[in-house]
Amino acid sequence: MCRFLAYRGQPILLEDLVAAPAHSLIEQSLHATEARTGTNGDGFGIGWYGERDTPGLYREVHPAWSDENLRSICSQVRSRLFFAHVRASTGTATSRSNCHPFAVGRYMFMHNGQVGGWSGVRRQVEAMIPDQLYMARQGTTDSEALLLAAVALGLIDDPVAAISAMLARVRRLMDAAAIGEPLRFTAALTDGATIWAFRWASDGKPATLYWKEDDTGLIVVSEPIDGHREDWEAIPVGGCVIAPAGGAVRVAALM
Amino acid sequence: MCRFLAYRGQPILLEDLVAAPAHSLIEQSLHATEARTGTNGDGFGIGWYGERDTPGLYREVHPAWSDENLRSICSQVRSRLFFAHVRASTGTATSRSNCHPFAVGRYMFMHNGQVGGWSGVRRQVEAMIPDQLYMARQGTTDSEALLLAAVALGLIDDPVAAISAMLARVRRLMDAAAIGEPLRFTAALTDGATIWAFRWASDGKPATLYWKEDDTGLIVVSEPIDGHREDWEAIPVGGCVIAPAGGAVRVAALM
Amino acid sequence: MCRFLAYRGQPILLEDLVAAPAHSLIEQSLHATEARTGTNGDGFGIGWYGERDTPGLYREVHPAWSDENLRSICSQVRSRLFFAHVRASTGTATSRSNCHPFAVGRYMFMHNGQVGGWSGVRRQVEAMIPDQLYMARQGTTDSEALLLAAVALGLIDDPVAAISAMLARVRRLMDAAAIGEPLRFTAALTDGATIWAFRWASDGKPATLYWKEDDTGLIVVSEPIDGHREDWEAIPVGGCVIAPAGGAVRVAALM
Amino acid sequence: MCRFLAYRGQPILLEDLVAAPAHSLIEQSLHATEARTGTNGDGFGIGWYGERDTPGLYREVHPAWSDENLRSICSQVRSRLFFAHVRASTGTATSRSNCHPFAVGRYMFMHNGQVGGWSGVRRQVEAMIPDQLYMARQGTTDSEALLLAAVALGLIDDPVAAISAMLARVRRLMDAAAIGEPLRFTAALTDGATIWAFRWASDGKPATLYWKEDDTGLIVVSEPIDGHREDWEAIPVGGCVIAPAGGAVRVAALM
Repeated sequence: MCRFLAYRGQPILLEDLVAAPAHSLIEQSLHATEARTGTNGDGFGIGWYGERDTPGLYREVHPAWSDENLRSICSQVRSRLFFAHVRASTGTATSRSNCHPFAVGRYMFMHNGQVGGWSGVRRQVEAMIPDQLYMARQGTTDSEALLLAAVALGLIDDPVAAISAMLARVRRLMDAAAIGEPLRFTAALTDGATIWAFRWASDGKPATLYWKEDDTGLIVVSEPIDGHREDWEAIPVGGCVIAPAGGAVRVAALM
Repeated sequence: MCRFLAYRGQPILLEDLVAAPAHSLIEQSLHATEARTGTNGDGFGIGWYGERDTPGLYREVHPAWSDENLRSICSQVRSRLFFAHVRASTGTATSRSNCHPFAVGRYMFMHNGQVGGWSGVRRQVEAMIPDQLYMARQGTTDSEALLLAAVALGLIDDPVAAISAMLARVRRLMDAAAIGEPLRFTAALTDGATIWAFRWASDGKPATLYWKEDDTGLIVVSEPIDGHREDWEAIPVGGCVIAPAGGAVRVAALM
Repeated sequence: MCRFLAYRGQPILLEDLVAAPAHSLIEQSLHATEARTGTNGDGFGIGWYGERDTPGLYREVHPAWSDENLRSICSQVRSRLFFAHVRASTGTATSRSNCHPFAVGRYMFMHNGQVGGWSGVRRQVEAMIPDQLYMARQGTTDSEALLLAAVALGLIDDPVAAISAMLARVRRLMDAAAIGEPLRFTAALTDGATIWAFRWASDGKPATLYWKEDDTGLIVVSEPIDGHREDWEAIPVGGCVIAPAGGAVRVAALM
Repeated sequence: MCRFLAYRGQPILLEDLVAAPAHSLIEQSLHATEARTGTNGDGFGIGWYGERDTPGLYREVHPAWSDENLRSICSQVRSRLFFAHVRASTGTATSRSNCHPFAVGRYMFMHNGQVGGWSGVRRQVEAMIPDQLYMARQGTTDSEALLLAAVALGLIDDPVAAISAMLARVRRLMDAAAIGEPLRFTAALTDGATIWAFRWASDGKPATLYWKEDDTGLIVVSEPIDGHREDWEAIPVGGCVIAPAGGAVRVAALM
């Protein structure tokens, strides 16, 4: 179980959310409170939009809490839309290519969850990715495969429908392989303008995900970074928060 | 183009070949002389047989020339059969999982070469690996995929036939994808007893590979570690040196 | 606060203590139970005696719990005397040179504790190290400085007296600098034959340290690796366990 | 011998100089042409001014040529003043704390050269650093010690005089220690506005350093990044180029 954070709004320094708050994402890397795994030390990543349509990425295999590069970059980079993620591996190796967020063209994606019995369906899930997209697969995680599979199912045109279709297919593959462990999917996606935040699980128990919007902007987090849960809205199980640039936030149902 | 070394014989310290000689493998990591790429700084690995049927592995993403752990381990580990490899990436990421040697059960494999146009045939080459073996794939390199494909084609029963069949199939896949770049395969394989050393290329220009045997044991190297090429025998292009434990070395033809 | 383990006895695989037990040192890297800091993810190290008078070292900046090299090396290296350490930094950087154990000639040392207000007395503590020894300083930790200062005070001839004298001097330096934080020193030392295990603190609250001896050998641990505290003897506060090779274990007083 | 680059002028993407040119600094990390050491693979670093008076830093122990984070950050960060450095160690460990540039407050410094016989005078050179500044020492390199010694000698008020005095003192320490190897100092310094570029050696053979100014800005480089040496001006041996923000570049003599 990982922890993550997404922001869109007035350009702010990444450190304002990643490092500074009492229960910042860096703090959550060492002391997560709403996850079964309190330590998220198997790598981390940040991704931000600035000079280009495609995001910048800094992903590293060390724990976030002791990474001086992370603190320095977050104290200097200002962005109107960024993702940050601290990783607790569910089995795959700790390499940069396995760290979130993942970028495909101008899209960026990060995930907290897992495909139960991954090694038993990895082959079939990867088969959902067409050749052209398969070239973009750099690591070996289930998360990256789910993203590419969703791209193949129309993510560019309709993210909610594509993610729903992807989850349904993966679940069928898991059923066919007689995998009893659940498929859990708490994730965030962006095209550099809109943010989509998903929360779904085959057993009805996805990881937590909260959001809040104020004059500065919209924040999506695994755990409230200020410790005041009453000020945050939980994304409903089976739901998706859609936050278009310049438009009102709305909640849709997955599946 | 990488550089590698294999040894089997009287138990010796790894450093006797990896670190001590004038043109040792560590020296070759910084100053290879027979390769187009003089620097092999994209990770390294050692693998050795000792306490178990399966090999021990130390693989790291740093350059070999400055790795104090490598020097320390090589100064303390004594083995009757070991592999060592310094990597110059042909495109895939520098991660531990992409560093040689690769181990599958009691087998160990390392490679210096490349599948031309890899991203264009990766999917098809990976499709040669059956589900059961695919679970063992940890990285994203062409080298690891070639090994697993050869295992699927009978490597355990007849390594020379399996490697030949694998190379023929991959070449056909490359032809079908209209890839003009060559398939080059200079590699070493062991089951913990016999060493097989292969040298083949679709354009007849595989990377160099030499061998020498004396009272202490057998050594296979990309470049002579003592700088005296006249004392080493080149493995013929299209050939394979087979060195069974306790038996005479013989040369066989591939394909 | 770190966690560590020392062993001397019948040659055993390192994994028998480092990886296999229910509350092994690798397990303690993620879930220490007797320390204020439950996570010891700021690097680790193993050191062992085998082929030479000087120990072999493998030290790395990653968390121990996910390091595949550590598991592989521990599954292949058999030793009659080894140290293992997982680190929770008290402020200095996470670099290999700052990871324990530290080796000086045939001696090996590891530490769990801290010099309160280190940056304020670092200069003076380093001044206790003579020029010749100062060349051996590779990192920037208080732990390595304490070791070298003790060497200067006669560690080779009388470890208990030298450690006592070093602690007394450092405490005076801290007093002179009006440092209110305590000096805490829970440590293990070996010359490749005898093991010394120290437990002392200026505020009477050193980190835990236990030992046990049976037919196989002697084990010193920060936390009992089997979870059965009743089977282990706590090293007394202000005391030192001295375990000479082939002789009876005895307890001495520090200071 | 390392390679480095400094820029001040119109805000540009770091990649315009670090990654894009034919003989960019990343290219020089693998194929330097004017240094005895062609490979600069022992770590790298970038430092830039943007949101704050103090610079942002990204320093890593891997070779620059294969670091995907470096390429991504350089493609997204735009700055009016930045340094970049690729390292070839002259003996000290490869750790982040030993990678250039070094930052002290709003100052930033990078170095290509060495203190001959460093381990023999390290203690005395470090003694030039007052206690208050010594706390800022994070690594173990000669380069960082030279910077802090120069700060103690008045770098803030008069950089050229302070660097000259520092070099004179270090040379006397080396003479006193009967060190025959030279002191070589090719370096760049900035306070976030002015750039100073130094080139001096006790044997009259400092590493190369060039500069060029056009409408976009000023560039200082170890090797011309466009391969056209005729378009660049060599900084004279024993000299210093001073480039104040908004003022004319002038050349001063050191010592």
